Amino acid sequence: MSELIKQTLKSSNQTDPELSDLFDDDTEDAGSLMSAVYLVLEDNMSVQGAMDHVRNQSLEKNIDEISYILVVDSEGILKGGLNVSQLVISEPTEMITSVMYPDIISVSADTDQEQCALIMEKYNLLTLAVTDSYGRLEGIVKIEDMIDVFQDEATEDMYKMVGVDEEEKILGPFLTSVKGRFPWLFVNLITAGLAAMVIIVFESTLTKVIALAAFLPVIAGQGGIVGTQTLTLMVRSMALEEISHEDTKKLLIKELSLGLVHGFVLGLIAGIVAYFWQENIYLSLVIGFSMMGNLAVAGISGVALPIFLRAMKLDPALSSAVVVTTVTDVVGFLIYLGMATLVINLII
Amino acid sequence: MSELIKQTLKSSNQTDPELSDLFDDDTEDAGSLMSAVYLVLEDNMSVQGAMDHVRNQSLEKNIDEISYILVVDSEGILKGGLNVSQLVISEPTEMITSVMYPDIISVSADTDQEQCALIMEKYNLLTLAVTDSYGRLEGIVKIEDMIDVFQDEATEDMYKMVGVDEEEKILGPFLTSVKGRFPWLFVNLITAGLAAMVIIVFESTLTKVIALAAFLPVIAGQGGIVGTQTLTLMVRSMALEEISHEDTKKLLIKELSLGLVHGFVLGLIAGIVAYFWQENIYLSLVIGFSMMGNLAVAGISGVALPIFLRAMKLDPALSSAVVVTTVTDVVGFLIYLGMATLVINLII
Repeated sequence: MSELIKQTLKSSNQTDPELSDLFDDDTEDAGSLMSAVYLVLEDNMSVQGAMDHVRNQSLEKNIDEISYILVVDSEGILKGGLNVSQLVISEPTEMITSVMYPDIISVSADTDQEQCALIMEKYNLLTLAVTDSYGRLEGIVKIEDMIDVFQDEATEDMYKMVGVDEEEKILGPFLTSVKGRFPWLFVNLITAGLAAMVIIVFESTLTKVIALAAFLPVIAGQGGIVGTQTLTLMVRSMALEEISHEDTKKLLIKELSLGLVHGFVLGLIAGIVAYFWQENIYLSLVIGFSMMGNLAVAGISGVALPIFLRAMKLDPALSSAVVVTTVTDVVGFLIYLGMATLVINLII
Repeated sequence: MSELIKQTLKSSNQTDPELSDLFDDDTEDAGSLMSAVYLVLEDNMSVQGAMDHVRNQSLEKNIDEISYILVVDSEGILKGGLNVSQLVISEPTEMITSVMYPDIISVSADTDQEQCALIMEKYNLLTLAVTDSYGRLEGIVKIEDMIDVFQDEATEDMYKMVGVDEEEKILGPFLTSVKGRFPWLFVNLITAGLAAMVIIVFESTLTKVIALAAFLPVIAGQGGIVGTQTLTLMVRSMALEEISHEDTKKLLIKELSLGLVHGFVLGLIAGIVAYFWQENIYLSLVIGFSMMGNLAVAGISGVALPIFLRAMKLDPALSSAVVVTTVTDVVGFLIYLGMATLVINLII
């Protein structure tokens, strides 16, 4: 029986190479993590028969680590499973079907690895059965192999957010690092150009009140941090499936409110400091209101960008920190210098 | 025997509450993850005796999931372990000591959870024994409970880097979010004030050539991204123990070189764009060189900050993105506006 399973497993891996090239992330499914099953029980065995089978197979195939054993019928269809200790503690004359768990959670070979990880975590499984469309056992995913997936998914999200290639090792080759990081730096150069253009547009305002320039990094910095905080929470919560599409409105309202509250307090502080420096209430008001506006936009874009990326079937983490900080730079400067221009005669 | 173990386990948890209050992160060690051991074997048992013991104990205590069984001597000292399947496949007359693995990796109750996770991952363990200083078995850590640790550690690093409380849930209470995020926003407000002061110092330079202001967000943005990229790689690699103290020099050289190379290429592009706009070669040179300088500093601080934090016995992830982006803002503006001031007569 186990030979049959191994055979099935082998043949299911022999896909057309041309075809599998089309899916370049096909290393990311259950099939690629799957181990062959060397030992299964049949559903017509008794406990004693099962123990004999386990003993013979173990000796023959030199297996000494068995914890969970799956049970299939004569067609190879998955019927249940049991912990090997169940054999030890049950009456030898009982039937396997009466001591096994009949309801076994299984996935198919093309189930996403992250999905498998979530199922194993949710149901506290040490092994996860992989079946084909007929319910035939194809293999198992072991929790030991899954640990790496958990680690890799987290690493991937962290790296992608800041535009680093998910495979990069910090001690890896120099050119690999350049290849992975440069593209997003270049994208950021172009988007930073947008922020530069906003400044150019308001050049005459800046010339009139050069003190305005001092608060540019404050507006940009605060917006960047708020946006990245929201974004990080969003990306991680989406990865752990703690939030779903239905939460979008609630999330937007919460992060918008947080942005406004933080913006009010921080804008107030910055405005007061500015007043002691320039003694112009209108400058302080411009600083305060643009802080509020920018942090509100930062919160909203931190929520909206990963949701938008997922809707576009892209990874929500995809270099999103690079994009969000640009949005907050551009919008922050627009609000700040725009408002300053409107009241420029009161500030001079 | 198992009662004795449970007793030991229980008593070892009864520490002075006053004392344990001193260590507010004592939920982060092996002890807090540890499960009681309800079933152990003694080293003087035969395989048959062990099977009888397992059967009796399972029925008595209603245990039906056993995979790995630990073996202790009459004093409760850990002697070895074996997979339950080993009982099934061995001769009933053999001694437990001859079929068990004698070398069992164990940790103590105060071993850090992250350390336990790394050991379990490295040796592919499903359970990890916890012993006291005499080698007596205190309990076990199961891989199911460890999965959450892996997830939490990754989440923690991501959140801490951007100054979000590690416990925050994005759908959690509003005030919890404010309490977690505001402190680092406030810190960033103060540090952004440093960047503002650099601009104030060079106010007269900016007044003379207002075009200089346009490149402030470009210098700051690029420095911020490079610093955060390096930082993210560092924090994650440190968490996964892929790098150690001995690599510091190599890392500094690599990230410094990367910063210089990226700075050269991106500075060249920015300089050329600036030349087409202002037709002043000295302005372009100032932009190009300050980009190189800032990205070199960004790379170095991305390596140095987490190493410094760990040396201070702090978490390397601790709001480090907030700090690194400030460093790059301040240093970037200093280099950029400083150089511009030196050659101001050539730029006007």
